[in-house]
Amino acid sequence: MLNIGIIGYGYWGPNLVRNFAQINGVRIAAVCDQRPERRALAAQLYPTIQTYAQAEDLLADATLHAVAIATTVNAHFPLALQALLAGKHVFVEKPFTATVAEGERLVAEAARRGLTLMVGHTFIYTSAVRKIKELLANGTLGSLYYYDSVRVNLGLFQQDINVLWDLAVHDLAIMDYLIGQMPTLVAATGMAHVPGRPENMAYLTCFFADHIMAHFHVNWMAPVKIRRTLIGGSEKMIVYDDIEMSEKIKVYDKGIIVSEAEDAIYQRHVGYRTGDMWAPRLDNIEALKIETEHFTTCIQNGQTPLSDGQAGLRVVRILEAATRSLANQGQPVAL
Amino acid sequence: MLNIGIIGYGYWGPNLVRNFAQINGVRIAAVCDQRPERRALAAQLYPTIQTYAQAEDLLADATLHAVAIATTVNAHFPLALQALLAGKHVFVEKPFTATVAEGERLVAEAARRGLTLMVGHTFIYTSAVRKIKELLANGTLGSLYYYDSVRVNLGLFQQDINVLWDLAVHDLAIMDYLIGQMPTLVAATGMAHVPGRPENMAYLTCFFADHIMAHFHVNWMAPVKIRRTLIGGSEKMIVYDDIEMSEKIKVYDKGIIVSEAEDAIYQRHVGYRTGDMWAPRLDNIEALKIETEHFTTCIQNGQTPLSDGQAGLRVVRILEAATRSLANQGQPVAL
Amino acid sequence: MLNIGIIGYGYWGPNLVRNFAQINGVRIAAVCDQRPERRALAAQLYPTIQTYAQAEDLLADATLHAVAIATTVNAHFPLALQALLAGKHVFVEKPFTATVAEGERLVAEAARRGLTLMVGHTFIYTSAVRKIKELLANGTLGSLYYYDSVRVNLGLFQQDINVLWDLAVHDLAIMDYLIGQMPTLVAATGMAHVPGRPENMAYLTCFFADHIMAHFHVNWMAPVKIRRTLIGGSEKMIVYDDIEMSEKIKVYDKGIIVSEAEDAIYQRHVGYRTGDMWAPRLDNIEALKIETEHFTTCIQNGQTPLSDGQAGLRVVRILEAATRSLANQGQPVAL
Amino acid sequence: MLNIGIIGYGYWGPNLVRNFAQINGVRIAAVCDQRPERRALAAQLYPTIQTYAQAEDLLADATLHAVAIATTVNAHFPLALQALLAGKHVFVEKPFTATVAEGERLVAEAARRGLTLMVGHTFIYTSAVRKIKELLANGTLGSLYYYDSVRVNLGLFQQDINVLWDLAVHDLAIMDYLIGQMPTLVAATGMAHVPGRPENMAYLTCFFADHIMAHFHVNWMAPVKIRRTLIGGSEKMIVYDDIEMSEKIKVYDKGIIVSEAEDAIYQRHVGYRTGDMWAPRLDNIEALKIETEHFTTCIQNGQTPLSDGQAGLRVVRILEAATRSLANQGQPVAL
Repeated sequence: MLNIGIIGYGYWGPNLVRNFAQINGVRIAAVCDQRPERRALAAQLYPTIQTYAQAEDLLADATLHAVAIATTVNAHFPLALQALLAGKHVFVEKPFTATVAEGERLVAEAARRGLTLMVGHTFIYTSAVRKIKELLANGTLGSLYYYDSVRVNLGLFQQDINVLWDLAVHDLAIMDYLIGQMPTLVAATGMAHVPGRPENMAYLTCFFADHIMAHFHVNWMAPVKIRRTLIGGSEKMIVYDDIEMSEKIKVYDKGIIVSEAEDAIYQRHVGYRTGDMWAPRLDNIEALKIETEHFTTCIQNGQTPLSDGQAGLRVVRILEAATRSLANQGQPVAL
Repeated sequence: MLNIGIIGYGYWGPNLVRNFAQINGVRIAAVCDQRPERRALAAQLYPTIQTYAQAEDLLADATLHAVAIATTVNAHFPLALQALLAGKHVFVEKPFTATVAEGERLVAEAARRGLTLMVGHTFIYTSAVRKIKELLANGTLGSLYYYDSVRVNLGLFQQDINVLWDLAVHDLAIMDYLIGQMPTLVAATGMAHVPGRPENMAYLTCFFADHIMAHFHVNWMAPVKIRRTLIGGSEKMIVYDDIEMSEKIKVYDKGIIVSEAEDAIYQRHVGYRTGDMWAPRLDNIEALKIETEHFTTCIQNGQTPLSDGQAGLRVVRILEAATRSLANQGQPVAL
Repeated sequence: MLNIGIIGYGYWGPNLVRNFAQINGVRIAAVCDQRPERRALAAQLYPTIQTYAQAEDLLADATLHAVAIATTVNAHFPLALQALLAGKHVFVEKPFTATVAEGERLVAEAARRGLTLMVGHTFIYTSAVRKIKELLANGTLGSLYYYDSVRVNLGLFQQDINVLWDLAVHDLAIMDYLIGQMPTLVAATGMAHVPGRPENMAYLTCFFADHIMAHFHVNWMAPVKIRRTLIGGSEKMIVYDDIEMSEKIKVYDKGIIVSEAEDAIYQRHVGYRTGDMWAPRLDNIEALKIETEHFTTCIQNGQTPLSDGQAGLRVVRILEAATRSLANQGQPVAL
Repeated sequence: MLNIGIIGYGYWGPNLVRNFAQINGVRIAAVCDQRPERRALAAQLYPTIQTYAQAEDLLADATLHAVAIATTVNAHFPLALQALLAGKHVFVEKPFTATVAEGERLVAEAARRGLTLMVGHTFIYTSAVRKIKELLANGTLGSLYYYDSVRVNLGLFQQDINVLWDLAVHDLAIMDYLIGQMPTLVAATGMAHVPGRPENMAYLTCFFADHIMAHFHVNWMAPVKIRRTLIGGSEKMIVYDDIEMSEKIKVYDKGIIVSEAEDAIYQRHVGYRTGDMWAPRLDNIEALKIETEHFTTCIQNGQTPLSDGQAGLRVVRILEAATRSLANQGQPVAL
């Protein structure tokens, strides 16, 4: 039996608890939250678990083999470090840490102790993203040209982190998983419209080797909710719309054909072909179910998680550079 | 009777001819195109007009009071200049000119001679854009926060100009009309995926005074056609979707309320209100009809066109700076 | 404290339990289901409740003041009757009963004993339907002309009831609430494509006095899910799309104007006006929460539920007549 | 050279003229319209054609080999008959005739004289409908189960014909082409909301042999424009949305599987499978171009048109029966 403790029982924590609770061989042993009403809620639904007001007390609980951390970003590092030092496997929500230095420290500590360290990059466990990965991996898309994502809505303004850390983190995790290489340069622009608050809208460009580029538009102050990614390849292109219920992924058999005309250099033609569209069936398994099971399996088998500390660190590295560029009105920052 | 000659009878020229031909007091007197089959086509539909193979010959036609130029961008300047020098009023398609210097020369020449110089910024004559202008002008939107536009599709790759000059020109013309001030800084990123061709996808940020920002995404290589602009204001926000047939403009009564909590600095709240949506009725008058009539009226009354040479020049100024930034991976360029 | 017992813990029962459990002054005292695994599930989540395998045993439980019945339709009548005879208030899922005779018996019994009898017409408690009711009641729509609903998807084929009893029941309950009068005549057509099964697709027309008509299209075998209702009035029209997340209700300021031309009877003109569209804000309260609270309130105050036995009976009356028409290829049946 | 005369130069006539004019070997020789301003318009665009105020005069023109009739329905029969009696091939707009008797007379007359008689069932010449026909013919859909069409909008109220004759005629023509057999029974309901006018909304069910059914919803008084057809087959289902620009046809790999469980009659299972969606590429050829060329080819080769008089007659037969049913509130009418 694997005993897990959850730190943070706010918006997301209950989802972790619900999913971990359904895994065979896993027991939710403890929940920690500073707010008494949140602890009461947990106790009511799961009468057998131990609740703690202080994370220190939970981390001192010797019966726990692993902890899942679902707090604000700033608390990720101290809590995860303490947990690792206490010999516990750690699952931490995204963004992994608030700085690259913190992330490096955690990755090193987990490696030193042989503990599983996993980041909650939930989107890479969705059917949609796994299907896109498959289409990229098996060559269906051809050479990748670009990745373009829009994630906007009238959302909750965060006080401590800008919109890139809050929203783009999802898309950067997806991009990291799909492209499988780090950008070489980033450039970001954005603006804060509420005095004293971090940027509420931002645009981020990532340049890669091989003429690949990625772009992210995130906005807390949009009139409508948009979650749409365009992925362009030399053979096919994808529209991935996460709001669309029945056809989240559409694969377009469209591409350009560059035909070299006989009379040469000034007469190059770019022909077009337009073909069918195809929306593959996706399974309905909840991503969080796959993710929590994956964490459990990795602990049990000593396997490296798909979204391990390194993955979390890569995303934080991009966010940190992007925030620097953002402060300089798009000045590019090399990685 | 105002005699007009049209130079360039390719894709767009016929639309100009069709619209000018329907205006009372206007006569399409001449059409010029180097391709015999295009001249034949014009002659068949309008048996009474004079056709020319050389622009010089048309411009030498003393019976013409005005010319409309619908050629490739590079030819705009020499033709428009010649026309002005010949004392003719000039209507020129967008982008106005290929460089700022050219644009300045034309504006000066037209001013010196008291001739009407108008640029074909057609979108500002649409019902949708005029309605948005009205909502901005009458304070409905509150303070403007941002302008965000996406114009992508699987389009015709241009040989001579990059995608900003081809697609963003439309949105920059709209933005110039709506915002009514010049950006102070631009930053653009993009990429060319066809060797030897200009950039086929680009992202452009414009910074303005007063915490206003604008962003443009243009792409010739997208799987689907998107023409969507989000406009955020302090009171209301607009979604303007040019592909939507019946509800091109949606006005959302959504906004953020920043409420200063009593116990102060750490407790700032950003409240939300979400209200109704409203899609105002738009009239169905063809923008090109309004535009061509406006040119005619301006000539007759000595009025300055809404999209005069200055407007064309402002857009070219942004495009020129953006292209410079584009070549430097987003390095911001002050205007 | 009001003690409630739930009979049937399959697909829908858990939702009733979850909602009743959150009402102050209400206690879920017992759950009954014949399947041991369903009883185990209930016991695990709610360790303090009593579980029963036989409905008779639950109904004999003298501590219960009310029961909620969420079984197959055929069991509604015997269970509800037994409950009423045992002096308990009754909440029964839709369709109310399998026949008009059964429904009449229950209504009479509840009236005789002064017990609350309520039917789970959940949709009339949604924000969307309540808003439409308001727009009808305050005259915004003008005179009602028609109600047209489509409810189709690739759904679960029922063995015992046809698609009208399974799907149209929702729309008939909405219609009954909105129109507030009974149709005078119904005509239904449909077909069964699986041998030995009831009709899997059906079309139902209801004629009312005052030139109002309603139509329902229900289908278990459609490729896509559609939940769309058009409501036409003399002043405005509504599109109510239950799948649409942010704009479930759109109110169109469109109508026809019949203008009597001077030269009379052969020259009548029907003019058109087309105006704005408006999507009112809807609150997000779960309909089932409102519904379960309403049942509780009605018991406590002796109030008549909005969806009382009479409402359930009216819908069953239409379904019974429609099924008769269906068997005769659309032969109209008077009510 | 085939000389064609067009009778009726209102809304649709100009489209016929424009298309016939572009066919090699065809000459628009004459146009007839009672309204002087319509004749003037035709003369201005096509200076060489002869215009007539009276159809009699055009039909007496011995140089004409064929006539196309685009008048109100009531004039179709007398004009077409006169044209056939004058030995001319006839193209007549839909609905073919106002009664079955008229249609039979025309079909017989054309046959007797060996003249081509074609009805303007334009939709069957669209890429979308031709593609659906192909998918039905090659077995992709499996056995056909149903055809369900919605064609509603805020349209022009007709004075002389009800909404079935105006709108359902399009869908009946498509259905006739796709299904290739006549219904055995029809049932229609509807209502007139403008006093003294024909029905402005109607629902029509057609029953066929082999458990196929079709249903049509037409409405002149809907707030939005919907043009959507669902086609259900045993293997696949189609959504054909004529308003959708880029994906008019979507083919769903969804179906039901009836699996006979071993323990028999009470335990039948209806399983489900849900698969991919596929939107085939459609060509962009204008249907009216194909249709007018087809008429010309049929005349020249003595071929029978796809939409010949018999096809027109079948649709009129259904409309006539449906109108009878409509008058009797859905009373089914055998064909």
